[in-house]
Amino acid sequence: MLTKDQRDRFEIVLVSPRNPLNTGAAARAMANFGFSHLSVVAPFEAHWREAQSAIGAEELLQNARTTESLEEAIADCTLVIGTGTLTHRKAEQTVVPLSELGSRVGSELDRGGRIALVFGSEKRGLTRDDLSYCHLLAVIPTDAAQPSMNLGQAVAVCLYELAGRSGAFLSRKDKDAARMGRPEISGESTAQVESPTATSGELDRLAGMIEEAMLAAGYSPREMQAANRHDLRLLLLRLNINGAGTRRALGLFRRILHKIGN
Amino acid sequence: MLTKDQRDRFEIVLVSPRNPLNTGAAARAMANFGFSHLSVVAPFEAHWREAQSAIGAEELLQNARTTESLEEAIADCTLVIGTGTLTHRKAEQTVVPLSELGSRVGSELDRGGRIALVFGSEKRGLTRDDLSYCHLLAVIPTDAAQPSMNLGQAVAVCLYELAGRSGAFLSRKDKDAARMGRPEISGESTAQVESPTATSGELDRLAGMIEEAMLAAGYSPREMQAANRHDLRLLLLRLNINGAGTRRALGLFRRILHKIGN
Repeated sequence: MLTKDQRDRFEIVLVSPRNPLNTGAAARAMANFGFSHLSVVAPFEAHWREAQSAIGAEELLQNARTTESLEEAIADCTLVIGTGTLTHRKAEQTVVPLSELGSRVGSELDRGGRIALVFGSEKRGLTRDDLSYCHLLAVIPTDAAQPSMNLGQAVAVCLYELAGRSGAFLSRKDKDAARMGRPEISGESTAQVESPTATSGELDRLAGMIEEAMLAAGYSPREMQAANRHDLRLLLLRLNINGAGTRRALGLFRRILHKIGN
Repeated sequence: MLTKDQRDRFEIVLVSPRNPLNTGAAARAMANFGFSHLSVVAPFEAHWREAQSAIGAEELLQNARTTESLEEAIADCTLVIGTGTLTHRKAEQTVVPLSELGSRVGSELDRGGRIALVFGSEKRGLTRDDLSYCHLLAVIPTDAAQPSMNLGQAVAVCLYELAGRSGAFLSRKDKDAARMGRPEISGESTAQVESPTATSGELDRLAGMIEEAMLAAGYSPREMQAANRHDLRLLLLRLNINGAGTRRALGLFRRILHKIGN
C-alpha cells in the first residue's frame, strides 16, 4: 500500500503525447489515484495545459513540468519504469507483468528512492531509445488481437494497480472485509441494512405463515414436506431482513390468508 | 483467469452515456481485454457508433446493442454488477472492492451464468434506480479528493482487473511469475456446479406478480409506489434464487392470485 508521501515520490512521465485530451485524461487519472507530479516531455501540441479532460486535475496540469528530453524528466529518479502492452518487440530490460510491479516499487520506496513511470506517445509507445532509460518494462497484459491501449486508459490502469488496488483509499473496514474475502456493506448503509436482522423466532413465524398461505392457495400440497420448510427457512435467512421487514411480510401473508379464507 | 468463452458471457452495459468519445473508448478497452458484447442504454447522442476513439473496436461498436432501458439490457443476465467509485451514497447492496470481484464472478461463470457489468453516465454515475437492478456494487478505490473517474478509464480499469490482470493474456512464464502472492480465481471449468441463478428478466416478472398479489389482497395499497417496487427488487436480488426457484415462486403467487380472484 502506498502512502501519500510515497505517491509523492512518483513522477508520471508522458513522452511526446500528441493529443491534449489524452494528457488531460492522464492528469485526471493521477488525481483519481492520488499522484501529483506530472512531467510532459516534448509535447506535440502547445495548448495541452488547457485540456478539458483534466476534470478535477486542472491545477495538477498547470503545475506539470515540461522538459525537452526524457533524460531530463527522470534525472532525479532512482527507478525508471517503462510501460507498454504485449506488442513490444524484444525488450532489453526485465519485463514485469503490471500486477507484479508493486513489490519491486515497494522495496525501492523503502530505501528512499524516487520512481518514474514512463508512458510513450499515442502513436508508437516508447521507442527503443526511450526504453534504454528504463530499469524495467511493466507490461499491461492485453489481447493480441487488439493490444494497443489508449494513453489515458493505460495511465489509469497502471495507477489503479499501484495505488487504488493496493488499498491506499480503502477504509479500514473495507480492508478487513477484503482480507477476509468477504465483502461488507460500505459505511453509509441504509437503515434497512443496519437495523438488526430478524430473530430466528420471527423468521420461523414468517415461514409458518407462508406455508399456511401456500396450503390455503392449494399450491403443491404434496411438496409441503419437511424439506420445503427447510428450504423456506434457508431462503428467509438469505434475505437477511430485519424485524420490521419480517413483520411487514407477516402482514402481507396474513392479509392473503384472510382474502383466501373469504 | 477468464477464458474467451467466459468473457463472451459478459455484457458490458453503458447507461445513458453522453459523450460518444467515451463510448468509443469503452469499446476500445473491451477490445484490449477481449470482451465483445456491448449494450448502450438510451444514449444521449445519436452518432456514437462512429466514435473515432474506438480504435481497433470499430466492429464491436457497430455490433453493439441499443436498448431503451437498463432492464432490457440485462434481461438474460444472472449476475448484475454495478460499478462506481467511493462517492456512492448509501449502497443498498453488497459492496465489493474491485480487486475482490474475481472470485464472485468466477463462481457465477462456473455455474453457467451470464454477467452484466454496468456503468453509469458521465454526469452522475448509476442512479439509485439503476442500482436496484444490481446484485453487487463493485467499487474502484479512488482518492476522496478527486473520486470521480472518466467513463472510458473506469471501464479500462474494471476490465483490466477481470481479464488482463488475472492472466488471460499472459504467457505461461508470465503466469507462473504472476501466480505468486496472488489469490487465485476459481477454476476454468464450465461444468455446471449449481443451476444458474435467475435472470434479471425472471426476477422482474416475479416482482410484478408479487405486487399484483399484494394489490389483490388489498395490502397497503398506498405503499404500492415506485419505492416499493425498488425495495422488492433489492429483496429478490438478495434471495439469490435460481431459475427453478423463481418459477416455483411465480407459480405460488399465480395460484394465490387465482384464489383471491375467485
